[in-house]
Amino acid sequence: MSVTTPRGFRAAGVAAGLKSTGAKDVALVVNDGPSHSSASVFTSNRCLANPVLWSQEVVKDGTVRAVVLNSGGANCYTGPEGFATTHAVAERVATHLGIGAIDVVVCSTGLIGLANDRRQVLAGVDRAYDALGTAAAGGGPDAAQAIMTTDSVPKQVVVESAGWSVGGMAKGAGMLAPQLATMLVVLTTDAVASAADLDTALRAATRVSFDRLDSDGCMSTNDTVTVLASGASGITPSLPDLTDALTHACTDLAMQLLADAEGADHEIAITVVGAATEDDAVEVARSIARSNLFKAAVFGNDPNWGRVLASIGTTQAAFDPADLDVAMNGIWVCRHSAPAADPGTVDLKPREVTVTVDLKAGQARATVWTNDLTHAYVHENSAYSS
Amino acid sequence: MSVTTPRGFRAAGVAAGLKSTGAKDVALVVNDGPSHSSASVFTSNRCLANPVLWSQEVVKDGTVRAVVLNSGGANCYTGPEGFATTHAVAERVATHLGIGAIDVVVCSTGLIGLANDRRQVLAGVDRAYDALGTAAAGGGPDAAQAIMTTDSVPKQVVVESAGWSVGGMAKGAGMLAPQLATMLVVLTTDAVASAADLDTALRAATRVSFDRLDSDGCMSTNDTVTVLASGASGITPSLPDLTDALTHACTDLAMQLLADAEGADHEIAITVVGAATEDDAVEVARSIARSNLFKAAVFGNDPNWGRVLASIGTTQAAFDPADLDVAMNGIWVCRHSAPAADPGTVDLKPREVTVTVDLKAGQARATVWTNDLTHAYVHENSAYSS
Repeated sequence: MSVTTPRGFRAAGVAAGLKSTGAKDVALVVNDGPSHSSASVFTSNRCLANPVLWSQEVVKDGTVRAVVLNSGGANCYTGPEGFATTHAVAERVATHLGIGAIDVVVCSTGLIGLANDRRQVLAGVDRAYDALGTAAAGGGPDAAQAIMTTDSVPKQVVVESAGWSVGGMAKGAGMLAPQLATMLVVLTTDAVASAADLDTALRAATRVSFDRLDSDGCMSTNDTVTVLASGASGITPSLPDLTDALTHACTDLAMQLLADAEGADHEIAITVVGAATEDDAVEVARSIARSNLFKAAVFGNDPNWGRVLASIGTTQAAFDPADLDVAMNGIWVCRHSAPAADPGTVDLKPREVTVTVDLKAGQARATVWTNDLTHAYVHENSAYSS
Repeated sequence: MSVTTPRGFRAAGVAAGLKSTGAKDVALVVNDGPSHSSASVFTSNRCLANPVLWSQEVVKDGTVRAVVLNSGGANCYTGPEGFATTHAVAERVATHLGIGAIDVVVCSTGLIGLANDRRQVLAGVDRAYDALGTAAAGGGPDAAQAIMTTDSVPKQVVVESAGWSVGGMAKGAGMLAPQLATMLVVLTTDAVASAADLDTALRAATRVSFDRLDSDGCMSTNDTVTVLASGASGITPSLPDLTDALTHACTDLAMQLLADAEGADHEIAITVVGAATEDDAVEVARSIARSNLFKAAVFGNDPNWGRVLASIGTTQAAFDPADLDVAMNGIWVCRHSAPAADPGTVDLKPREVTVTVDLKAGQARATVWTNDLTHAYVHENSAYSS
């Protein structure tokens, strides 16, 4: 039930003192092969953290042998010294494993603009190497714990296929946004797959999972999703099967992120149907997911469909402004852009809320997931730096 | 100090029972001429309220003789019956004044998706006509009160020029967003001005005032800014002078809206300098103004410049991600995208906060104003429908 479920992987999660609580904060995932093909996607933010700047170079040749991750500091906007720390971490992992640093992906998460103590991180890497594969279940569960920040629970997944499997772990609890939530994700598989196929499958999987999670509209600087394939099963799945398995794993982890979003009282699935194109459907759903007024209304259990229409009207999608239908939890409270069923019959108290919009402009559809805007969100993001 | 300060205008504000509190809720502003030239700008939302659909037709010929406004109901997403109510209101005003309904702008504000009782609104129009110009200062202050919704204070302005003046009133306290805040604004002037010159001057004025107010990123469905020129002063100002006076009036009213934004603890002026173009400066400033994480940090008096850089990175503006400078309240906490002055020296307790970003890409600059994200904002927008 972790990144070490597929054959060919060892992992570890240890405490290096980066977190003031003394909790685990350095994780290492190693691909023992025989294959080392890999693919990654990163945040589309232009102001990137140092580990992303490093890892973008690492992944270019499709070969990754290890991923080292730390919480307790994002190493973002920390200047050349911060980049040197990232480089030193990759070198240290490489030295231990007898490989090249250019095959080591580095991920960091935590406070932006604050440099970690380099010696402290490197000591954590040493400890993680010593612990590789020694803990329960090959160390995967420890690694999942070591990447947590404001997460209240570790997030892991396994998808079993015929003779091969996909394992995964994720961190992320706020700043979930378009073009990836603020999150680090490592996926492993013992399938035999080329780097090119992994890239195709991973992009297809993230496009309909992490890319459609929009917790608070804020885009992170450190987001990284990396998949490692060991080939240890000896089985070569078809590209559709590989894509299905990765999509399943990414969607499961995305829903775990959504359920653990900072301060949220509701998980909201916004589905737009009848769109002229899938892009239109995503644009409309995302505009609703980003309306603070709509999100505050859901927090207040108020089925305020007017705020939904006001958001739709800000988009460039194809629709007739006088002929929009909106349902909340299955009840069509708005038909033809005017009141329909009594909103008083919509019960928004359950944690899961659905909003359905019919644009009546075509056959395409898409779902975007978000959370409500709550007092606890404001509290978590005003009382604590991150 | 109101819309009736310039010569040639009468106004009224009365209670018609649309507000459950019994407060004033119908306002009427009449231009007694000799000229009736006018210009207007409206929300760019595609899902428009009925009064906007009506008024867009009214203003086309550059002649407006009266503006009738109601609070207690936005008449938005209320279908054909709602449009019929708007039309009936314009006809009733026209009948009283002996003019055509096509010269009567109608504005409504309040709850979306709820139809007002037509007879109640029309009775309010009758009462407002009877009260025209009879109250203190020609009725302007009463009109300003009658358009309030969640506003805690009425908003009025007068700009005096040599022999002529501009008066104005505004309502708006939330949903302040790009391409106009949620607000109704009536401006009056006794200057002699053609409709074309008024249009040019008004668009120049709103572009740098209301269009740069972004309280919560949510765009309204009812926003209207109308300027009426009576020509009663007999003075024809130059276009630059007219533009200056309208810009002064609009900026003053915009700052009153900002200061009264729902639940805000801070007013934040985000100034981007060193931009390649003014559009770049606005895009960057607006991206920061829309970051819930940044706004929550300001509420918590946390000078979190990392969240500023993370927002800048989401834009397409010209800049070097490794060479951005950020100041908060004049202290440069970030230089070259890395920590500079100690953020602990920034005191964010005062209500007014400034953020300055230097993109080092050119000479253009722009300021966008926003508020912090507070518990009170969440409370106002979750506990009450609007």
